[in-house]
Amino acid sequence: MSVSRVVREGMEAGSWIRRMFEEGAELKARYGADEVFDLSLGNPLVEPPAQFRDELWRLVSNPAPGMHRYMPNAGYPETRAAVAEQLVRETGVPFTLNDVIMTCGAAGGLNVALKAILNPGDEVIVLAPYFPEYLCYIENHGGAVSIVATGDDFIPRIAALEEAIGERTRAVIINSPNNPTGVIYPEEFLQELGALLDREAEANGGPIFLISDEPYRHLVYDEGIYPAIWSHTRQAMAIASHSKDLALPGERIGYLAVHPECPDHDELLAGLIYCNRVLGYVNAPALMQRAVAALQSVTVSVVDYQRKRDFLYRTLTEAGYSVTRPAGAFYLFPRSPVEDDVAFVRELQQYRVLVVPGRGFGTPGYFRIAYCVDERTLEGAGAGFKKAALKYNLSPGTTDKR
Amino acid sequence: MSVSRVVREGMEAGSWIRRMFEEGAELKARYGADEVFDLSLGNPLVEPPAQFRDELWRLVSNPAPGMHRYMPNAGYPETRAAVAEQLVRETGVPFTLNDVIMTCGAAGGLNVALKAILNPGDEVIVLAPYFPEYLCYIENHGGAVSIVATGDDFIPRIAALEEAIGERTRAVIINSPNNPTGVIYPEEFLQELGALLDREAEANGGPIFLISDEPYRHLVYDEGIYPAIWSHTRQAMAIASHSKDLALPGERIGYLAVHPECPDHDELLAGLIYCNRVLGYVNAPALMQRAVAALQSVTVSVVDYQRKRDFLYRTLTEAGYSVTRPAGAFYLFPRSPVEDDVAFVRELQQYRVLVVPGRGFGTPGYFRIAYCVDERTLEGAGAGFKKAALKYNLSPGTTDKR
Repeated sequence: MSVSRVVREGMEAGSWIRRMFEEGAELKARYGADEVFDLSLGNPLVEPPAQFRDELWRLVSNPAPGMHRYMPNAGYPETRAAVAEQLVRETGVPFTLNDVIMTCGAAGGLNVALKAILNPGDEVIVLAPYFPEYLCYIENHGGAVSIVATGDDFIPRIAALEEAIGERTRAVIINSPNNPTGVIYPEEFLQELGALLDREAEANGGPIFLISDEPYRHLVYDEGIYPAIWSHTRQAMAIASHSKDLALPGERIGYLAVHPECPDHDELLAGLIYCNRVLGYVNAPALMQRAVAALQSVTVSVVDYQRKRDFLYRTLTEAGYSVTRPAGAFYLFPRSPVEDDVAFVRELQQYRVLVVPGRGFGTPGYFRIAYCVDERTLEGAGAGFKKAALKYNLSPGTTDKR
Repeated sequence: MSVSRVVREGMEAGSWIRRMFEEGAELKARYGADEVFDLSLGNPLVEPPAQFRDELWRLVSNPAPGMHRYMPNAGYPETRAAVAEQLVRETGVPFTLNDVIMTCGAAGGLNVALKAILNPGDEVIVLAPYFPEYLCYIENHGGAVSIVATGDDFIPRIAALEEAIGERTRAVIINSPNNPTGVIYPEEFLQELGALLDREAEANGGPIFLISDEPYRHLVYDEGIYPAIWSHTRQAMAIASHSKDLALPGERIGYLAVHPECPDHDELLAGLIYCNRVLGYVNAPALMQRAVAALQSVTVSVVDYQRKRDFLYRTLTEAGYSVTRPAGAFYLFPRSPVEDDVAFVRELQQYRVLVVPGRGFGTPGYFRIAYCVDERTLEGAGAGFKKAALKYNLSPGTTDKR
C-alpha cells in the first residue's frame, strides 16, 4: 500500500462534489457539454472584473525589479495594509497590516489557522450543512471534528452549540454567507455566539476561537448588510479569499485577519506566519498579491448573481420544491422531494442536470445547486427541475411530500 | 496560550536562516543596506529570464476565457504534459502527464508527498547537512525524523544509511544539487541507494520511497552532468520548483513527478492529488502554471552563478578556509575556523557579512553562504572573509586550525 491509511480512507469516503463532477464528465462525453446542465461546482463562470485585468496588465507591462522574489512570509506590507484599510472601511474596527496575513486562498488560510492553534485531540465545532473540506483541514492538524446541526432555517442554535462545547473545544468555524445554503447569519446570532464562546473559554481556562470563513462576504443580495464577527468577540479570526469576489479561484489568493485586540495577539500572529511557512505555502503568490492590493473594494457583478438566484428560486418554488431563499453566495440548498438525496440526484441526471447530494455536506435529504453558471445552463437546469417535480407530483404550496 | 505546543516549540527553536535575516535587518538599519553584505538567504537577486517576461506578457495581453478559474487539482494537462516532455528529454524515462502534478513550489510538493505516504510514527531519513524545513514538513504529517550524517565530502555513506533504516522507515529525502553544500550526488551513490532501498523495502514488506528534492537541478556547473534517480529505483518521486531555475520564488510554482513504473502508481497519484487538495493548496497558481508550460527548457544564466562560485571559492581557499567546491546550486558550506560556528558568524557580522551557522542545517562547525547576490555584495563579503581569516591566522594550505 503506497498511500497512508488516512489518505486511503479519505479517498474512499470521497468528495460528493468531485464524484458528481466525474459523473458529469461522463454525461458530457455522451451528450455533449452543451446538453448537460452542470450546477455541481462552485467554479465561477464569470470573468474577473475589468479592473483586475487592467491592474494585471499594468504590473506585467512595467515589471518592478524583484517582483517575483520571496517577500516576508506574511506577504507584502502594501497588500496587507490595503486589506486592513478595506476592513476598516467595512467594519470600523481599527485593523492595521499587523493583523493581516496574505494566504494561498481561504483553504490555505484555514489550514494555517488550524495548524497554529490545535494541540492533538483539540476539538473544532463545524455547523451542518458544512463545506466538506473543513473535516479534512481539521484532521490535517490532529484535531477532532464535532458536528452541530443548524435549524430548519440553517441558522445555528445557541443551545445546541452550548451543549457541544466541551473542555477540549478550541474553535468554532462559521461560514456566512454559507456554502451550501446561501444563508447569512444574523447579528443577534453572532452576538450570542461571541458571548457564549467568551463565557465557555473562561470556564475552560483557554481560548475558544471564532473562525469566520468569509469567501462570499462581498456576495450579498438585496442590498443586505453583512453582519461581521468583530464586535462580538475579540478571540476572532476571519479568512477571506478572492476566489469568488474577484473570480480568481485558480490563483489561490486570500487572506487571514485577526482581531486587533485578540488576546496574545502578537504571539498568535507570529504563530500564523510560522505556519504559513512550515506548511509549505511559504507565501501567497507574489504577482496576485500585488494585483489585489488595488482591488480591495472591487467585486464581480452581484446583480448578475442575484438575477440568477431569483430565476432559480422562483423556478424551484413554483415547481413545488421547498427551499430557503439565499441572502448571499451562489448556492441553493433545496429539500430533496424524496428522503434519499442520492436517488434524487441520480433522477436529475436523467434530465442531464448535475447537482450534489446534501449528504456531501453532512445533511442528507437536501441537494446543493451552485448557480455560478451561464444563462443557458440555468434554463436547461430549470426545465430539468420542473420535470423531476412533475415526476414526484410536487406542486406549489404542497411542497413536503416526505 | 494561543498557539499550539508544537508551533510554540518550533518558533522557539527558530530558524537560523530567519534569525540571521533579522539580525541582518538590524545591521542594515544601522549601516545602510549598501554597507551590509548579506549572504544569508537563498532569494535569487537575478530577474526571471526574458522568455518568462515575454510569456507572461503574452498571456496577460490576450487573456484566454476562464484562465483564472479552477482547473483539475493536478494542474492543467498542457502544463503537466510539457513538464513530462522535458523530463523525457532529460532522462529518457517515458514520463507522461499522468506522472506529474503541479504544486505550490517544492515546499508544497514535499508536503503533498509526505502527507500522502506517512502513517503516524513512520520514519523519514534526512541527510545532514539538511534544509531545515524538512524537519517541519515531516512533523506536519505525523512522521518521525531520522537524521543521518554525510561524509566529510558531504556525500552520504551507504553503510550509515543501511544502519539507519528500520521497520518504520518510509522514505529517504535527498537534495542534489544540495542546499547548503552545493554538492551533486554521484551516479554510483544513487545506484547503491536505489538498490539498498529496494532490498530493505522487501525485507520491511512495504515501500521505502526515494524522494528527490531537486529545485537546483538545472543549476549545474562546469558543464557537469546531473545524475537522476530514475534508473536506480522505481519507488521514486522527484520534487522540483521554478523558484531557482526561473527565479520565481515568490510565485510558488513547482511540480512533483512519480516514476512511471512506480508500484501502485495510480493509487499513489490519486493520493497525491487528493493531498494537494485537502492540504489546502487546491492547485498550483493558475497563471504561473500557464506561464511555465512553455519554459521547461529555459534556465537563468548558469554561467553567472558559476562565476560567482568561482570568485568566492577562490577568495575563501586563498584566505585559508577549508571548503568543498560546489558543483551546483548557489551555496558554499565552508568549515568555520573555530568550532563554535555561531561565534564565527557573529565575528563575520563585525565586517557586516551575513551568513548562517551550520547548526541551522544540523551540522555545527560550518557556515552557509548563499551567493545568489550581486557583485558588490560578493566583493564586500570577500573582503570580510579575508579580514576574519587574518584574525584567526588562517593561511592557504594550513586551513585546519581546529
